[in-house]
Amino acid sequence: VRVTLVDRENHHLFQPLLYQVATAGLSATDIASPIRSIVRDQANTTVLMAEVERVDLEGRRVILDSGELSYDYLVLAPGSLPNYFGHEEWRRDAPGLKSLGDALEVRRRLLLAFEAAEREPNAARRAELLSFAVIGGGPTGVELAGAIAELAKRALRRDFRVADPGSARIHLVEAGTRLLSMFDDGLAEHARRELAELGVDVITGARVVAIDDHGVALEGGRMIEAATTVWTAGVRPSPLAASLGVPLVQGRVAVEQDLSIPGHPEAFVVGDLALTSGVPQLGAVAVQEGQAAAAAIIATLASEPRQPFRYRDRGVMATVGRSRAVAKIGQTRFHGLLAWLAWLFIHLVLLMGFRNRVVVFFTWVWSYVTFGRGARVITGIAPSQPRSAHA
Amino acid sequence: VRVTLVDRENHHLFQPLLYQVATAGLSATDIASPIRSIVRDQANTTVLMAEVERVDLEGRRVILDSGELSYDYLVLAPGSLPNYFGHEEWRRDAPGLKSLGDALEVRRRLLLAFEAAEREPNAARRAELLSFAVIGGGPTGVELAGAIAELAKRALRRDFRVADPGSARIHLVEAGTRLLSMFDDGLAEHARRELAELGVDVITGARVVAIDDHGVALEGGRMIEAATTVWTAGVRPSPLAASLGVPLVQGRVAVEQDLSIPGHPEAFVVGDLALTSGVPQLGAVAVQEGQAAAAAIIATLASEPRQPFRYRDRGVMATVGRSRAVAKIGQTRFHGLLAWLAWLFIHLVLLMGFRNRVVVFFTWVWSYVTFGRGARVITGIAPSQPRSAHA
Repeated sequence: VRVTLVDRENHHLFQPLLYQVATAGLSATDIASPIRSIVRDQANTTVLMAEVERVDLEGRRVILDSGELSYDYLVLAPGSLPNYFGHEEWRRDAPGLKSLGDALEVRRRLLLAFEAAEREPNAARRAELLSFAVIGGGPTGVELAGAIAELAKRALRRDFRVADPGSARIHLVEAGTRLLSMFDDGLAEHARRELAELGVDVITGARVVAIDDHGVALEGGRMIEAATTVWTAGVRPSPLAASLGVPLVQGRVAVEQDLSIPGHPEAFVVGDLALTSGVPQLGAVAVQEGQAAAAAIIATLASEPRQPFRYRDRGVMATVGRSRAVAKIGQTRFHGLLAWLAWLFIHLVLLMGFRNRVVVFFTWVWSYVTFGRGARVITGIAPSQPRSAHA
Repeated sequence: VRVTLVDRENHHLFQPLLYQVATAGLSATDIASPIRSIVRDQANTTVLMAEVERVDLEGRRVILDSGELSYDYLVLAPGSLPNYFGHEEWRRDAPGLKSLGDALEVRRRLLLAFEAAEREPNAARRAELLSFAVIGGGPTGVELAGAIAELAKRALRRDFRVADPGSARIHLVEAGTRLLSMFDDGLAEHARRELAELGVDVITGARVVAIDDHGVALEGGRMIEAATTVWTAGVRPSPLAASLGVPLVQGRVAVEQDLSIPGHPEAFVVGDLALTSGVPQLGAVAVQEGQAAAAAIIATLASEPRQPFRYRDRGVMATVGRSRAVAKIGQTRFHGLLAWLAWLFIHLVLLMGFRNRVVVFFTWVWSYVTFGRGARVITGIAPSQPRSAHA
């Protein structure tokens, strides 16, 4: 077989650690690996950095921004985007956290908020600048809120003279009745308690009705003050699905048991875009589905029957902060230091590339000992050129 | 004393390693340290992230974009910007290399050129995409040209199927008669030979008359094909100097022997903006001048006489590539492996922060063994949002 791998980015991204890039714990390059390096030794694999504009299922063609590809077999894994539930205008004041670009933008906003607070003579506005809101109490929201609290109250605490990062307020807003809906009640309650110990204000059962750069308005009239807001309240499927011309369920493709598109045994959908009963939207699922789609293609080429996809639940975990995490592996539930160490270990193993593993491991040890955050660098400002009016 | 440190960025940048960020060898955060962390333990020091718009020497005020500061003593160290010698329009197709933003932009352009070459069906255009020009044969230009050659011919060589990074052409263009004018003839000739061994085409005595995204035109009519060009041909002083209202020499302040501005013993200029006879524009000079200005202020506060500034030449070095460097320390000149090891060691020592030193050291060892470049990640693309027309 000849394989062409198309991606709009040049790197594979380890999304579970994005929140650490957003909170200056890790560098962007630590959690990304060049796709070309990953498949370097597969001589039959070509990598194309390109944007897929649409898929022509009948013509078996993929239309790119820079040409088109025809195929015998197709595996679609475009993932999902932040879902603002019809309020795209919230994106401006509440960016999502799905790509490296997102993480660097969130990092920039977080760090600039503290800098602005240090310059701010008005105490009320300073308090607003030191208030942060995270919308969405899933694993990403929980991890991000905890990490912002540790950034403010530990890493930055002694670095300011006027502003007091220790007084920062972090609000975690969840529309459902509790955090971490994919965990059970006991673990969710643990996460809530550990967040509270870090100083995070957890607000559940609260629906957002408006967001701007002063804060978040909740249904019922409550206002949450926050100059910086991050959106982790849900995802929507890639708009690529719409180009397929097949029926969608909430934007997702209800695939066959072998993950193929109904009526198109040569075209597979894996990851967040694939709707399969009882399977959550997790990276681990996407990996297993990718392997299953490859196995199905190989079986078909060998004229053997395809096996139906079966998800093996390896568990779920979320870290709340230093020595704090919750985990559910099989029927076992645990929390605290043990869960945190398990989280560290598993994420190091899943991270791709020897260099990244060593650097991330060392950075974690260093951060644990010093409470420091090694990537407190604001980039994304214009390249070196005069910015003042005198230039 | 109370000290206020004002900078437009939130980080101190170790400029000598910028070219390694630009060529994906190091991460941006590896060579930057948060200014606040550096002076954390100086209780009398406040850090302000702000842009200085002008200095009112008579009124002893610094006017910021976000307010103003009055002072008893002033130390100005705004550094310099890329100098396009009146051709600012070249900036678009030939960015400079003075800030982290610059380095990330150059990295993005270099990596995207290889990606575009892989997609390019036309062989002539592919060759153009795989051609690179570096303008300016000082240490930065020499180091950058060598690093681009190693990136193409070593790190990327096996990662492409259509394009052949090994066939990349790298042109280093210098207006003077030889490279590295601050070194002597012998070392400059060594650098040229080592660059030639890496496949870099060194062109001296060549003045640039035009630049676009197809290449560089030289005086006399010669055209150099290159889709990507980087400008390292010189610097100009910060435009802040113009706001001082004192006579300037080529945009720089001809300071007194104690580094103060003539007629203003309370105001010092250090670094690239200070013109002192026989002293080159080097980071090492700026550091020594900063220490001298501080000593002068302390002496004055203690009613003691100021000592005139004396530059202690600790030598100059430039690395050409793997195991290749040239160095001049005192009357000693050396090159090759020994100079390269000395370069590595000295730059590790000068780099700020324990975490950065360890990560950079490990990354260098890893790169030496694997020929890999760990930061081959294109960022700076828009955050996660639909980019296709279907969005």
